[in-house]
Amino acid sequence: MKNDHSLLSNIRIVLDHTSHPGNIGSAARAMKTMGLSRLHLVEPRRFPHAEADALACDARDVLGEAQVHTTLDEALRGCVFAAGLSARRRDLAHPCMDVREAAQRLVEIATTQEVALVFGNEAYGLSNEELSKCQLMISIPTDSAYTSLNVASAVQIMAYELRMAVLTESGAASDTPKFARLEDIEFFYQRLEETLIRIQFLDPDHPKRLMPRIRRMFARTQLEKEELSILMGILKQINLHAKHKVD
Amino acid sequence: MKNDHSLLSNIRIVLDHTSHPGNIGSAARAMKTMGLSRLHLVEPRRFPHAEADALACDARDVLGEAQVHTTLDEALRGCVFAAGLSARRRDLAHPCMDVREAAQRLVEIATTQEVALVFGNEAYGLSNEELSKCQLMISIPTDSAYTSLNVASAVQIMAYELRMAVLTESGAASDTPKFARLEDIEFFYQRLEETLIRIQFLDPDHPKRLMPRIRRMFARTQLEKEELSILMGILKQINLHAKHKVD
Repeated sequence: MKNDHSLLSNIRIVLDHTSHPGNIGSAARAMKTMGLSRLHLVEPRRFPHAEADALACDARDVLGEAQVHTTLDEALRGCVFAAGLSARRRDLAHPCMDVREAAQRLVEIATTQEVALVFGNEAYGLSNEELSKCQLMISIPTDSAYTSLNVASAVQIMAYELRMAVLTESGAASDTPKFARLEDIEFFYQRLEETLIRIQFLDPDHPKRLMPRIRRMFARTQLEKEELSILMGILKQINLHAKHKVD
Repeated sequence: MKNDHSLLSNIRIVLDHTSHPGNIGSAARAMKTMGLSRLHLVEPRRFPHAEADALACDARDVLGEAQVHTTLDEALRGCVFAAGLSARRRDLAHPCMDVREAAQRLVEIATTQEVALVFGNEAYGLSNEELSKCQLMISIPTDSAYTSLNVASAVQIMAYELRMAVLTESGAASDTPKFARLEDIEFFYQRLEETLIRIQFLDPDHPKRLMPRIRRMFARTQLEKEELSILMGILKQINLHAKHKVD
């Protein structure tokens, strides 16, 4: 995970002709939560702006370092690859890639070179001319009944997918809990069965499928060492009380 | 794809103690773009509210049909599975699943039964007690330098992952077992606690972390209807025997 930030810093988010400053702020926050920091703005209608600052929360540094450009070409300078987000299908469709696959592709390139993700205006998206400057068109799979994804939400989804692509690339070490040993679990099952017979829940002459069912339930849970201790302790107390009665 | 909507309508989004009405509106829009429609609110600070309407855009119908509750239990009624979003790692960690894997699991269950995704308050998230009512904790992998994901953004990411899970699902009808309802599981926990006190395993004056541990264990196993019946039957017998002793 040590090189994630240098990899993610090779990815820039380009917001093209964004109307609402609030969306720029929300996009900055969305980026920062996923480890992205390089924001480029092409002709934002209002920027800098108090509303952008307010919605950025603690990602105002991303806004502070944002670069403002007059053309998309300028915003893409230095990049070897650009992907444009588009809700619409075009007549002359660009190669359109699955979001997830696209994120993997971008991360792959970003390990050594700079790439861009381009988001268009809230109302009309990216023009065909702007899309033509991208090598790839990405379409987030919205519901056909309501395709109007907020631009900062689209940034959030893509930033998340980029981060997931980074995380799944390197095998992350997870902290595995201490599981109970199988022989100790077997011992527990024996004790449990005896106890269920003692409290007259299990009829040894007609055991049906009770123990197999219980085994299946605990097999699914993958008991931890400490949990097994608790269960054994409970059994002990049940037996103590049940014995008293029988005596 | 024809049954996607009925599947997605088995998934409810629960916003718990949300402070800002704008976030409720944005969440509704995020949901609708991904085909989700069932919104449940637990004690929202201000709702309905003009700001919620404004940010929902054309997803105001989702707000209009939102159900408002006074408790999380009420909001989860009828569900067989609930997953809680949490930024923090807990001492006694719930089974914490990868976002993507969790989405697949939820979609799998939602093919036949109702499930919930629970999002906490903007400032303090979900309490441990609230999380204990969930079978699964989901942690969106934010950057350690800035983990403060907006709640509507978290809804957007999860809604997107649910949609992706639906789209990528092979369509192979898996035979999901009949799970126990959450309210019935809560009732079991109550009875179990009483029983453990009765057999003197649990000291009500020093309960330590016993019940949370047991909840966590059963949360992992995701109890089936029939298994819960078995467990309730066992409790009944234990009490029968323990009572005799006390008398």
